[in-house]
Order: sequence, then structure tokens, then C-alpha cells
Amino acid sequence: MENGAIFDLLKSLKSEVDRRIFEFLPSAHEIPEIDLLYQMMRDYPSRLGKGLRPGLLLIFNRAFGGVDERALTTAAALEIFQNWIVIHDDIEDQSDLRRGLPALHIKHGVPLALNAGDALAGKMWELLLQNRGIIGPEMTMAVFDEFLNMYSHTTAGQHIELNWVAARKWDLAESDYFEMCRRKTAWYTVITPCWTGSLIAGIDMAMRDAFIDFGMDLGVAFQIQDDVLNLAGDINKYGKEIGGDLWEGKRTLVIIDLLRKCSGKEREFIIGILNKEREKKSQGDIDKVLGFIKRYGCIAYAAGISQSLARRAQQTFMDSIDSSADPHYRQVIIDLIDFMVSREL
Amino acid sequence: MENGAIFDLLKSLKSEVDRRIFEFLPSAHEIPEIDLLYQMMRDYPSRLGKGLRPGLLLIFNRAFGGVDERALTTAAALEIFQNWIVIHDDIEDQSDLRRGLPALHIKHGVPLALNAGDALAGKMWELLLQNRGIIGPEMTMAVFDEFLNMYSHTTAGQHIELNWVAARKWDLAESDYFEMCRRKTAWYTVITPCWTGSLIAGIDMAMRDAFIDFGMDLGVAFQIQDDVLNLAGDINKYGKEIGGDLWEGKRTLVIIDLLRKCSGKEREFIIGILNKEREKKSQGDIDKVLGFIKRYGCIAYAAGISQSLARRAQQTFMDSIDSSADPHYRQVIIDLIDFMVSREL
Repeated sequence: MENGAIFDLLKSLKSEVDRRIFEFLPSAHEIPEIDLLYQMMRDYPSRLGKGLRPGLLLIFNRAFGGVDERALTTAAALEIFQNWIVIHDDIEDQSDLRRGLPALHIKHGVPLALNAGDALAGKMWELLLQNRGIIGPEMTMAVFDEFLNMYSHTTAGQHIELNWVAARKWDLAESDYFEMCRRKTAWYTVITPCWTGSLIAGIDMAMRDAFIDFGMDLGVAFQIQDDVLNLAGDINKYGKEIGGDLWEGKRTLVIIDLLRKCSGKEREFIIGILNKEREKKSQGDIDKVLGFIKRYGCIAYAAGISQSLARRAQQTFMDSIDSSADPHYRQVIIDLIDFMVSREL
Repeated sequence: MENGAIFDLLKSLKSEVDRRIFEFLPSAHEIPEIDLLYQMMRDYPSRLGKGLRPGLLLIFNRAFGGVDERALTTAAALEIFQNWIVIHDDIEDQSDLRRGLPALHIKHGVPLALNAGDALAGKMWELLLQNRGIIGPEMTMAVFDEFLNMYSHTTAGQHIELNWVAARKWDLAESDYFEMCRRKTAWYTVITPCWTGSLIAGIDMAMRDAFIDFGMDLGVAFQIQDDVLNLAGDINKYGKEIGGDLWEGKRTLVIIDLLRKCSGKEREFIIGILNKEREKKSQGDIDKVLGFIKRYGCIAYAAGISQSLARRAQQTFMDSIDSSADPHYRQVIIDLIDFMVSREL
């Protein structure tokens, strides 16, 4: 399947998911302040997004014999998770842009945006409970437990990353970065979508560990690719500020590789720039760090690691997961793995 | 029952609730960053608090024939709700103090504190689901629905209040303030605790509307008393900054009354001060507003409204709720209502 076909499939699944989200989220209120809250809750979900995570959920559900109707509410709840968590994430990282438009806290200020994120999180749990009438109370609870598990890993991973910035910690190994990414990204981007979709389709619980192995690798591969695009992407496709991770002082595989390869003096110079408060950095500072990154080939290095993790995820999928999968969707998934690490947005 | 006896009862109930919370929350992790996250999640719950909300839940549970064991997990989840929501609230209001100690974002910065609030919120839902083995799956879901309802009202009320500040809106009637307080305070402080405790004890669902009437009045009475203490309390007992609401520019009943009573010129002057950014206000500014509040008797006015709402709540309780309540706990509740609006902390 070509990338174009994958893109179209994700787009058509996302439109199903969006319909479910927007029929569920409240849309208007007679009290003007509450009406504004509802608009804020619908803001990020209304912006263009790939719908990768709910797409994975629905594709895995189909692959193991499920029908969309039974998985759609869970896919919509997962998309809501992504939306409220990035409202908070944008505040935490002081990001200005989200999907090509001003971040919610830039439009409305931190207090209202933070609270709107909380309000949207409540809607996620509420929507998940609507599963009771769709997949029955027991499966509803099983899905709920998966979401709680994902939630706990994601906040722990986010904490690790934020803490590195707050504590100005730079003596990090690749393994520290992988550990952080597995928690911050792999659960909500790959493991929970793929596993929950398959679970609703009726897959054997004994398969869960294989999904975790598969999702850890693919999730980290995806995050590294995201880091690469953050430095080398096209802003019109990426939707976030190019170089934003450098402005925010993030610890990415690119930076870890750079700090390992550069001289002691360069290291001191680079860390000096990255440690500055965002508003004290200049475009010249960022350009200097980018220059070192290019000189030492760190983007190519990171992209290579991403590719090899994705290949390992493909192998795990073929060896340990796909035996009972529908042949058409088995191929879709194999191609989708390539898509996730070769994507430009 | 004297205030001292009420205080002792709440204290003993809170120690039961705290035991449940601290056996549940994670306490240590081999990765030092995650260990710090766990410490942050346990920080607010470790601080001295009255335990009013879980206390109400357990007292109403006892009043309608319930045993503590069946209600304790829900009471602990409610206390966790209060704790994570005030982590976010302190960021939104830029409050420096919570229960006499620096707010979590003052200790660790906004990004880590915001995320720790999210992590603690996840634990609330996780704990609520442990009810499955205690009160059965159906009652667990009923309690869950009550929490979702509370959650949605609380975030809507919080949004209204924050939006008034962000939009510099001052043309507010008492009814606007009451509407905001019912959402922001009444649900999580009174309605949900009292109703959920009674529900677990097996009260008739038909009673729910009476609990809402009762809780709306008592919740607003409690919030007004809190506003009064914010201006006229003793910092050692109150635990938050005295006059903090003026620094934050909050719309309280005291201020609404003041703006109604003062001259047009005074109104302009007062609003000019309240509209200033927190860091641009001086102690002299705050003292001037306090002078007007005293001159126009606004604290006494607000305290009077609080008392009359509390009396109406007592009447609703006696007329529409207490018929099947245990006589001892009926009296405890009547006295507790007085305690809530005469309390000094």
C-alpha cells in the first residue's frame, strides 16, 4: 500500500471518529461563559490532524475481525485523550503552535486553557462509559483499565522529560531517552490503540505482551521521527514550530548523540544555549546548535535508529502477532509501520 | 454537638480516609524522576486539611445506615479529587500558598505541577474502580456517574470564574455569583459527598433532587464564608494568603456588594486596582480596597447571606431529607451545617 493510500485510509477513519466526537461533545450553552468553554473543548479536535492513533485502533480492530461500530467510541475517546493532553503539554512546553494554529493557551491564556484541558479529560471518561451499551459492561471495564494504564505511563513519561529540563540534566544515555519515550509516547501512540482495538475484536489476552514489545519499538521509532521532523521538517506539513525542541531545550536522541560526539568545549557551549530560558534564546543561538547537529550527522543517526526500531517492530508483528490477522489488513499494518517512520507530517 | 466535637469527628474520619489514600498512592520508584512524581502526588494529600468533603460523605453514609468500609474508597477518591483540582487551581489563580505551605507549582514550577495534577487525577479514577470488589459493579458505575457529573460542573464553574477575570467583567449580579458558586463549589463540596455517601448506604434514588436543593444552598453558603475568611481570617488557621482574592481580582459576593454600594467614582477606582495584574498591585492598593469593604459593611452583608442560606439548607434537610436518617447522625448533620458557616478555617 502506497503512503497516499494509507493517508486516505486514515483520513476516512478519522472522519468517522470525528463524527462520533462532535456528536458527543457539548456544542452550545445559554450562559456565554460556558458556551466559550465548549468552544475551547472543541478547538483542538476541530483542527486538522492525521488521526493516527484512532486509525491504528480501528485498523487493528478490523484486522482481528472486529466491526467499526464496536470500536468507534473507544477510538473517539482515544482521540480526545490526545487532544486534552496536548492542551496541557503545550502549556508545559510553552509551545506557541499546534497543528499550524496558535496553541489554546496563546489564544485564551493559561488559566482558561488548563481548565478546558481538564474539562475535556472528563469527557474522555464519560465517553468511554458509553461503551456499556455497545460492548457490554465487562469489555467496557477492560478498556477502561487499558486507558488508566496508558494514562499513568504517559504522565510518568511526561514528568521524566519535564524534570530533565527543570533539573538541567544532560548526562543522559540513549537508554534514558528510550525509557522516557516508551512511557511518554509508546503507550498512547501505539500499544494502547493497537491492543485495545484488537481486544474489542476478541483477540486472546495472552497476546498482550507481544503487543507491548511491538508497540514499544514502534512508539519510540515514531517519537524519534517526530524529533527529526521537529528539526528538519516543513512547517506547513509539521504544524509545529521548526526547531521548537531546541527552543524548549528538549532532550532528544539527536541532542544526546550530538553531546556524545562533540568536543568538551562544544558540549559546554551547546548546553549553555539549551539551558537558557526560552525567551532568552536567540535565532542565532538556535542556528548555531543546528550547525553542530548537521556537522556531526546527528539527524541521520537518529533517523537510522528510528528505521531499525521500526523494522524490528515489523518483525515482531510478523513473528508474534499477525497469525490470526486478516491478510488484507496484515499488509496494511506492515505498510503503516513504514508510513509512521517515513511520514513528513 | 459543639464545634470541637465536630472537629474531632472530622479528624477521626479523615485519618481513616488518609490511611486508604496512602496505602493506594504509589510511594517509591527506582527511577529517581518517577520517584519525584510520586512525592509530588502525595504532597497536597499529606498536608493538614479538614477533610470536610470525605467527612460529609462518611457521615451521610452512616446517617442512612451504611458502614464505613463500603464508603471509604469513594471518600478517598473524593479527597484525591479535591487535591488534584487545587493543584491546577493554584496554577490558574497564581496562588502562592496552600494549607500554609508553598503551592506545588511554587515548589516545582508550573510544568511539573500541572502534570502531577493530571497524574493524581488518573489515580482518582483508578481508585474509584477498586469499588468493583467492594460495592459491586453496578453501584461502582452509579458512583462513577456521580463523579463525572461533579467533575463537569466543577470545571464549568471554574471556567466561569476564570473567564470573568480574563475578560475583566465586573457588571455582575448576585445571581451570577450564585450560579458560578453552585457549579464551582456546591457539587464537589456538598451535593456529591452527601448524595454519594447516602447512595452507597442504599437511599432511594427519588431523594436526589432534595439533596441537590440542600447542597446548592449549603455549598454557596460555604463558599461565601470562605470568601469572608479570605479577607478577614487568621492566616494560621486559614492556610492561604489573607486578601488573596483581592490580589487575584476574584469576583466574590463581598466585591459585588461593594461595587453596588459605592459611588461611581469609587467604583472606577476600585475596579482599576482589581483589574491590575497581580504583580502590579501593591499592598497599599489592597489596603485601600479593604478600607472600602469595611466602610460599606460588605463582609457583614456577605456573612449574613451565608448564614441565611445555611439556615435554608438546614430547613431543607429537616423537611425533605432526614426522615429516614439515624437520629444521632441527623443531629450531627444539623450541627455540621452550622460548623461549615461559622468555621474559622
